[in-house]
Amino acid sequence: MAGKVFFSVTMSLDGFVAPGAVSVEHVFSPDGQNDPRAQRWLAQWSELQAWLLAQRWFREHLEIGEGGEEGADNDVARATYERTGASVMGKRMFDGGELSWPEEAPFHTPVFVVTHSERDPWERPGGTTFHFVDDGIESALLQAREAAGDRDVRIAGGAETIQQYLDGGLIDEFSITLAPVLFGTGIRLFERLDPARLALDQARTDASSRVTHLTYTVAKAA
Amino acid sequence: MAGKVFFSVTMSLDGFVAPGAVSVEHVFSPDGQNDPRAQRWLAQWSELQAWLLAQRWFREHLEIGEGGEEGADNDVARATYERTGASVMGKRMFDGGELSWPEEAPFHTPVFVVTHSERDPWERPGGTTFHFVDDGIESALLQAREAAGDRDVRIAGGAETIQQYLDGGLIDEFSITLAPVLFGTGIRLFERLDPARLALDQARTDASSRVTHLTYTVAKAA
Repeated sequence: MAGKVFFSVTMSLDGFVAPGAVSVEHVFSPDGQNDPRAQRWLAQWSELQAWLLAQRWFREHLEIGEGGEEGADNDVARATYERTGASVMGKRMFDGGELSWPEEAPFHTPVFVVTHSERDPWERPGGTTFHFVDDGIESALLQAREAAGDRDVRIAGGAETIQQYLDGGLIDEFSITLAPVLFGTGIRLFERLDPARLALDQARTDASSRVTHLTYTVAKAA
Repeated sequence: MAGKVFFSVTMSLDGFVAPGAVSVEHVFSPDGQNDPRAQRWLAQWSELQAWLLAQRWFREHLEIGEGGEEGADNDVARATYERTGASVMGKRMFDGGELSWPEEAPFHTPVFVVTHSERDPWERPGGTTFHFVDDGIESALLQAREAAGDRDVRIAGGAETIQQYLDGGLIDEFSITLAPVLFGTGIRLFERLDPARLALDQARTDASSRVTHLTYTVAKAA
């Protein structure tokens, strides 16, 4: 249990990790296909994630297609995946993903879903098993750490779940891939946080021609 | 008149260019010296600008003291100053600066202040002259471009003035120095903007151990 607890997200230059106004469930529902607001959500989301969708590692990993880029962005995407021994996510992220992930969910590790209701573990082909944890974020993290062994635990999202772990002093470090897009509205990464409790150090910066990957370590509050 | 129009600001990781709640004028007023809120403003502002205050060029330029760092941050600070042939600023930024700048204001070029009232030019020792422009942001920019010659025009701030120039399609490029601090509240750089009108390209990234300098070019709307 020597791994770190981290998160890694792509953020717009104006601070959003997702477009707002529409729920992810709706975007991927049959109704969403015909809803211009849902299609606008998907267009903004695609613009934010464009850097990742172009990477060779990501395309192979999700079986999207051949080819792709192999520079700094590809290295970051692969390294983030390879360091992750288990993930933790909020129920809303899971609900959206349940509708949009392929049959072979792209984690290939245990995933702990923070929820308020009981549900049996859900095993997917390819090694991803979703475990539903109804007794709080610390319990989910404890189980994830145990499952991860000496690899790291990724707090996958969404923003509110990440904020809860940050506020609880439970994050060791995090990476933000800053994309040159502006959303204007949406779901902010840093919201509802008490900044006095969070001291950060800039650990490293990796830039490609598309985006900049920023890594920070969190200094524990006294 | 071949220069570019740019802005260059330091931003907290959660998107703020200044702490909120207190006016800059109040911070530097006699009352502000005894107001804990004003002192907290100053502490946050100092944390945001800590990277700059440590640079040799900046310390010499403002006659703060000897010594200082001479790496990437120093180069960025000096280059930003040297490219600037004239500045444009909003009235509130000027009001705060009038109380806090040294007698020898740190611009050493013409500065055009966007305001609603007439005032004669105000000449300071060291080459800074403030011109007060009461017929709009485009007029201020036109005068600044003329004064700058083949050097660039810097939209100095504050955030609202920068937003007006961005919204007007009048900015060619901009730099954000991203500091590893969180404010929680304050004045956001990107607010009240229509993101559909702004397409950005990431032009370059320069990181030091303290901060990351991000430069973007603005693609003109069709």
